[in-house]
Amino acid sequence: MGRIKTEHNISRKDVIIQKAATLFKEKGFKAASMRELADIVGVEAASLYNHIKSKNELLNIICFDVANRYIHKMDEIENEKISSLEKLSKLVRYHIVGMINDFDEVYVSDREWKHLDNPYLSNLQTQRRNYRKRFAAIIEEGIKKKEIKKIDAPTAVLIILHAISGIESWHRSKQKINGKELEENMITILIGGLKNK
Amino acid sequence: MGRIKTEHNISRKDVIIQKAATLFKEKGFKAASMRELADIVGVEAASLYNHIKSKNELLNIICFDVANRYIHKMDEIENEKISSLEKLSKLVRYHIVGMINDFDEVYVSDREWKHLDNPYLSNLQTQRRNYRKRFAAIIEEGIKKKEIKKIDAPTAVLIILHAISGIESWHRSKQKINGKELEENMITILIGGLKNK
Repeated sequence: MGRIKTEHNISRKDVIIQKAATLFKEKGFKAASMRELADIVGVEAASLYNHIKSKNELLNIICFDVANRYIHKMDEIENEKISSLEKLSKLVRYHIVGMINDFDEVYVSDREWKHLDNPYLSNLQTQRRNYRKRFAAIIEEGIKKKEIKKIDAPTAVLIILHAISGIESWHRSKQKINGKELEENMITILIGGLKNK
Repeated sequence: MGRIKTEHNISRKDVIIQKAATLFKEKGFKAASMRELADIVGVEAASLYNHIKSKNELLNIICFDVANRYIHKMDEIENEKISSLEKLSKLVRYHIVGMINDFDEVYVSDREWKHLDNPYLSNLQTQRRNYRKRFAAIIEEGIKKKEIKKIDAPTAVLIILHAISGIESWHRSKQKINGKELEENMITILIGGLKNK
């Protein structure tokens, strides 16, 4: 039986989850198999099941880990004593950095969550809907305080999140600018346009 | 044999192409069948072939029609005697309106073109690459003239086009704002952020 290479304090289970995220991103959840995952991790398929019950459990973990992180950040930002525009800017930056640094998990949680089973599926749908409402509420608050231009807040959320998901192309691009430059460019475009002069 | 309902000056072939775009959008090109298309159009499958050689020909027509329209618009805008920022604004607006009004064709040409056969596939890839270069060149010209903020132009193109592709969610959304309002919101966010004050 092969051995799982672990780095620092990352557990075997964490390694399996990370490799699963990469595999699901590249092949799609449906097409990916536990056998392939075992090959990538470097163990027998049977021994994966010492750590993980099923392919679906892996998807659950990936999706809910990402959801937790974003909800936690939202809680934090909502409670900060800063302007609404700064809150929005922080939130947008968190999304951008997430897409740059934790691309595989974020991508999978964003594109493959539809393959979750219930009750996880409907639970995550509700979480996503609430998250977007809170995102829009920050924009609405900023409009009320005249920090942000008058626009339709849910539409702005939609536009911002889609623009950020475009970082997918950046990952695939051959001649790419560095991550920090990408981050600043995106903030310039997405926040610059919303700022009320 | 059923009859194809034609409106105004739209030919039978045009009706078939429009219905094909809707079908390809909903099921994906691969999964869609000529039999289904015949059902939707309201004719026998065999009689579709009086107008169209194959499913692939339909995809060719959809993709190249859309490409032609965008290239034609790009030619037109490049030659206008207006500022680079106004050129960019016109171009972005054209993309937004295209996604709102001609959603099915634009969506199919943007998502399903990878299923084209060669030489069409590589031809369209080249056209897409050139189009994005010309798009970036307008932004670069604007930066040089100090009308547009200093950013990485190809990245700005990527962000803008992804944000616009988000109109897909708007089409699926139940409580949506009207198209004109969406258009203005998108211009506010995407062009507002790039404008050099």
